[in-house]
Amino acid sequence: MALDMRTPNPVTANRQRTLMSSARTSASFDSFELTCMIYGSAHIVKDRRAAFERVETILGTRDTSVLPSNYAYTSREDLYMQGLTWGKAAIEDSIQYQHPFFDNSTPQNSLANSSPFGMTRAMVELGIQLCASEEQKRQWLPLFRTGKMIGAYCQTELGHGTFVRGLETTATWDPDTDEFVIHSPTLSSTKFWPGALGFSCTHALVMAQLVVQSKTYGPHLFMVQLRSLEDGTPLPGITLGDIGPKMSYNTTCNGFATFDQVHISRKAMLMGHAKVTSDGSYSGSPNSKLIYLTMLKVRTTVVKSAASQLAEAVTIATRYSVVREQGAGAESSHSIEKTIMWYKSQHFRILTIIAKAYAILFASRTLDAAYEGSREEQQEGAFTSLPYVHGLASGIKAWSTQIAADGAEDARKCCGGQGYLSISGLPDKVAAITALATLEGENYALWQQLGRYLFKCLDRIAENEDLDPRMQYLADGYIRHLDGINTLQYISRPCTATGHEFLDLDVQLSIYRHTALRLILAAHTALYTSEKPYAEAWNDNLMLTIAAARAHNQYTVVSSFISHINSLPSTTSPALKTVLSYLSALFALSEIINPQSINAISYVEDNHLSHAQLDSIRDVVNGLLEQLLPESVALTDAWDFTDASLCSAIGMADGDVYETVMEWVKQLPINRKAWDEDGGVFQPGWREMVAPVLKGKL
Amino acid sequence: MALDMRTPNPVTANRQRTLMSSARTSASFDSFELTCMIYGSAHIVKDRRAAFERVETILGTRDTSVLPSNYAYTSREDLYMQGLTWGKAAIEDSIQYQHPFFDNSTPQNSLANSSPFGMTRAMVELGIQLCASEEQKRQWLPLFRTGKMIGAYCQTELGHGTFVRGLETTATWDPDTDEFVIHSPTLSSTKFWPGALGFSCTHALVMAQLVVQSKTYGPHLFMVQLRSLEDGTPLPGITLGDIGPKMSYNTTCNGFATFDQVHISRKAMLMGHAKVTSDGSYSGSPNSKLIYLTMLKVRTTVVKSAASQLAEAVTIATRYSVVREQGAGAESSHSIEKTIMWYKSQHFRILTIIAKAYAILFASRTLDAAYEGSREEQQEGAFTSLPYVHGLASGIKAWSTQIAADGAEDARKCCGGQGYLSISGLPDKVAAITALATLEGENYALWQQLGRYLFKCLDRIAENEDLDPRMQYLADGYIRHLDGINTLQYISRPCTATGHEFLDLDVQLSIYRHTALRLILAAHTALYTSEKPYAEAWNDNLMLTIAAARAHNQYTVVSSFISHINSLPSTTSPALKTVLSYLSALFALSEIINPQSINAISYVEDNHLSHAQLDSIRDVVNGLLEQLLPESVALTDAWDFTDASLCSAIGMADGDVYETVMEWVKQLPINRKAWDEDGGVFQPGWREMVAPVLKGKL
Repeated sequence: MALDMRTPNPVTANRQRTLMSSARTSASFDSFELTCMIYGSAHIVKDRRAAFERVETILGTRDTSVLPSNYAYTSREDLYMQGLTWGKAAIEDSIQYQHPFFDNSTPQNSLANSSPFGMTRAMVELGIQLCASEEQKRQWLPLFRTGKMIGAYCQTELGHGTFVRGLETTATWDPDTDEFVIHSPTLSSTKFWPGALGFSCTHALVMAQLVVQSKTYGPHLFMVQLRSLEDGTPLPGITLGDIGPKMSYNTTCNGFATFDQVHISRKAMLMGHAKVTSDGSYSGSPNSKLIYLTMLKVRTTVVKSAASQLAEAVTIATRYSVVREQGAGAESSHSIEKTIMWYKSQHFRILTIIAKAYAILFASRTLDAAYEGSREEQQEGAFTSLPYVHGLASGIKAWSTQIAADGAEDARKCCGGQGYLSISGLPDKVAAITALATLEGENYALWQQLGRYLFKCLDRIAENEDLDPRMQYLADGYIRHLDGINTLQYISRPCTATGHEFLDLDVQLSIYRHTALRLILAAHTALYTSEKPYAEAWNDNLMLTIAAARAHNQYTVVSSFISHINSLPSTTSPALKTVLSYLSALFALSEIINPQSINAISYVEDNHLSHAQLDSIRDVVNGLLEQLLPESVALTDAWDFTDASLCSAIGMADGDVYETVMEWVKQLPINRKAWDEDGGVFQPGWREMVAPVLKGKL
Repeated sequence: MALDMRTPNPVTANRQRTLMSSARTSASFDSFELTCMIYGSAHIVKDRRAAFERVETILGTRDTSVLPSNYAYTSREDLYMQGLTWGKAAIEDSIQYQHPFFDNSTPQNSLANSSPFGMTRAMVELGIQLCASEEQKRQWLPLFRTGKMIGAYCQTELGHGTFVRGLETTATWDPDTDEFVIHSPTLSSTKFWPGALGFSCTHALVMAQLVVQSKTYGPHLFMVQLRSLEDGTPLPGITLGDIGPKMSYNTTCNGFATFDQVHISRKAMLMGHAKVTSDGSYSGSPNSKLIYLTMLKVRTTVVKSAASQLAEAVTIATRYSVVREQGAGAESSHSIEKTIMWYKSQHFRILTIIAKAYAILFASRTLDAAYEGSREEQQEGAFTSLPYVHGLASGIKAWSTQIAADGAEDARKCCGGQGYLSISGLPDKVAAITALATLEGENYALWQQLGRYLFKCLDRIAENEDLDPRMQYLADGYIRHLDGINTLQYISRPCTATGHEFLDLDVQLSIYRHTALRLILAAHTALYTSEKPYAEAWNDNLMLTIAAARAHNQYTVVSSFISHINSLPSTTSPALKTVLSYLSALFALSEIINPQSINAISYVEDNHLSHAQLDSIRDVVNGLLEQLLPESVALTDAWDFTDASLCSAIGMADGDVYETVMEWVKQLPINRKAWDEDGGVFQPGWREMVAPVLKGKL
């Protein structure tokens, strides 16, 4: 069954449409089956399509012959107004129809952060659920869920990002009024970056250093009303504003805020786990573990978004590549041009990017499951699995956002000049994705955190302490000695696979496991044998630690891809199963031999794989590319992006590239004004600048 | 002697200023000496500074407390108007003071393509010089040079890019009028992308298929007047317009053009080498070699621009990194934060990017010299060295633009959230640089071209034919057999260096040479032993060919860096010489071990370098990083970018990051309007969107 949202215009098929149609029908499997797997079920897919259809109908974006407004009007004010418009449509639809499709992403499949109304669900409600008291939850959650309050999450400051303990904003308990006083003591303590802060939100969760009776208790969360609900004016003592244009996310008002001795109720402190009473006594703890859980949940969202946004970019690039003709291969005298997809370098790049989007998707499911386990445990007051989940999330977040950003940019480059044009949709997708590497935990900081966790695991193994069962491969990988672990089991066992044995998923996994074990041990040994003070030794060995963390993460990711394929429901069609296992093999093997892979050297340098084996892997990868080439369009169709959400003149489902480009370009206001009113001339420019140069006396 | 343009405001030094000052004074060499080396001489540096000062004074951009207009006004029309403004200032200064500083780059150090007046010198005058007759040169050049005509270079079409022979626009000789008729026969033949075409240029060099007496002679250039010099209106039959917003270059009007049977004089064809006479006879040839030379010259410009734009990005990142404090290293209980530059991963990234900017600079000099040699040869009618120079330019262009784009984006990521903000200057620099990978020859197409040249060299060696002397290393590298070359001399000679021997420039070079020879031979063998038809075999082996081309290019680049250091004038100070040789070693060695290097695996997989040797190289690189860390600011100061041209709130020379960010943000029109007129509220958004959601009945 294929529910098809696309209702192609009944126009004469041109060459591009014909090429697209044949690239689509060459697939061996039904892309709708994969769509259902991606989103959960046919029922969910149907509901999701209905939600997009309603919102796109309200916004008038379903008529793809009309130039989308984000390309026509690009001033700061115009873009923000557009975000408010579709943000409002999305939030109202979510409230009316009670669905989650726009909770974490927008009608353009971006992170909810790019909607002025998006932080409410994505972060503020989450923070309340995890850190507020039951009474506070009852008070606030219904208001936020029905749009009666609009939230921002205020943590980062002008001078402080990832290092939360360095925050400077203070919340001081005032014994005279039994209130907290929120204050920005320095320029660098200005709250800076929070989404929706500039002009959209009414309330914010503010992270501030709690000070009670001159004692500092570290960062705590406070619910602070920032604006009048009546007319939007900032409350006394609060200065709010926009931080200006950014690479993307210009549809929202990332903002700044300063607080000048702003009094708020004592009960505005989130008191789920720490309390300040009216006599000024502090009990409980800031419960940084719960703040961790909040961050973890947000990171699971970021990872899912990385998969989906990368899929968007490569959907556009795939569609353009099967209809764009260029050159004639090596037969330079030949006059028939080839589609650019025909070129090996092009389909190598595009198919490996497609594989990466699926790898991230499956990794995000592993992460979701681990998070949910930790959340259930926490509800019974335990935090045993938190370090594991934190390590897992750090690695998957850092890895997925990096490869999604690099992959999207490469997909964009695959579209040549057209990919540089805003109306291709790719520039904004690339700019939006690359933010993920920085927000919610800067990637290099996260690699360090995963490294620290891995070293602690090794310490636990050495001391015969319990290990999270999911880290058992580490314990199995090393030979224990009396003085602790110091030998790698597998060091003397080079990989013995040849030829097509590399298609075996267990062989692939064993290569990744070997490399992870080797690098973790090497980094751990270098750190613990250093004679320098710990901080210096840590910094000296940072590149090794990062390499180790990356290798562990790669093992986790490959393992997750493989285990998802192994546990596909028995109803899965054989054709889809085959395509997914090819994709998994392409992902695992191309990472080893691809000269662009950041980890490539690791698999090779200790002779675990020989030169001949690498050549075999190259052959196997070439074979996989041939198998997968006819599946490309179906593999991207499966993500089920609407034309309106892709917002791409070169990536529309029907393949009609050139007519759409020209149709949109001709609607640009700068052209319409010149043609309809000014004789084909941009008058201010001609009169003030061009004409004076032409008539210059120089 | 240090001529310093920076006149810091006499304000109280804040912490960031103090940190910057100490990072600057830690250098062991005088950055002005390096500035003179980069630009040629102290005299040129002085003239260049004077030109920037005059233009920046006219534009009012020298007062860095004022928010630059490109961040305040971002509509399509506003950005184009800004480009016209500074483009006019630059061209008028160039004409008045007769200097070349803005011929190929703008007052923001971008490629001249981003100025509406920039294509005139960068491409149109060049095309005339190479392809026009002497009479045509006398007629046109003075007009373009004095701004009496403003040019565009119209080659690419909506459906056609790199593959010039596929162009569809026709120029048909009409025997009745003895004129050419320029015509766009299809939608895909629409001229698309040329800079300045939309609204700025008066004339264009149009590449069109020449048709005379029903015979097609391939692409030729024609000088076509597009607009009235009086009022700017497009001439009859010509439709012109803007192609809309792009990732960058929005200060110019990249445009499209269609021609509906437009008659032009027969003498408008560029007749330096091919002629059509009034009786309709064609003589000469399109001389694709001269078109090659035009492209080559433009590529030398692109490479220089890649160096300089990468240097800009890393200047900003370096300055921000030495004043931004974050976290406390591994000593998590410690309260004093470290500058982010302190972290090994940060200075590894930043210093290797600095090294890359210099590597590109020196490679561009090698390319310039080769181009000049070829140009001189051509003026005597010979084209012997053209294939070599074409291969050289293909490789250096593809390599430099890729590493510049990746490096600039990584430099941007090094600045965390602040790097995502437009006022950091980095988003636009990254977006501008990444265009270089696509324009003037798409990089993957260029790698193929270099590969084809390398294989031809191998064929020549096998047949004992002459080789360009600069390719002698290939001939030396292989053992000739009766049946042609098929053995690598060095295959049985692993690298024997240990420890600090890797600092030896010859050792570094030998590693690169070995890898290049190995990969070229492997790709050549795979291609020629394939049993498939040539075009298919070529495509099958494309990834090997690209790897071979990359490796040859890396060898060329490392070799160029080293030979520039070896031939420094004897007056060079020892301190500078030492720093440059460290930088060269860092470049060569980090490319081998850096897990992000696209070539890393190649140096390792055939056991040319052992595991232990790679660990030695890592140690040597760590030592180099320690030596170079105090030189970072001076190494970027040396590029001598003015604050106005960097246009970065976080990259100003004095280090005053936070105050500048807030000063600029507060001047944003969206904030000023809200604060000064609207009670701190963005009124249209609040009234139409936020208030209705708050008051919603849902």
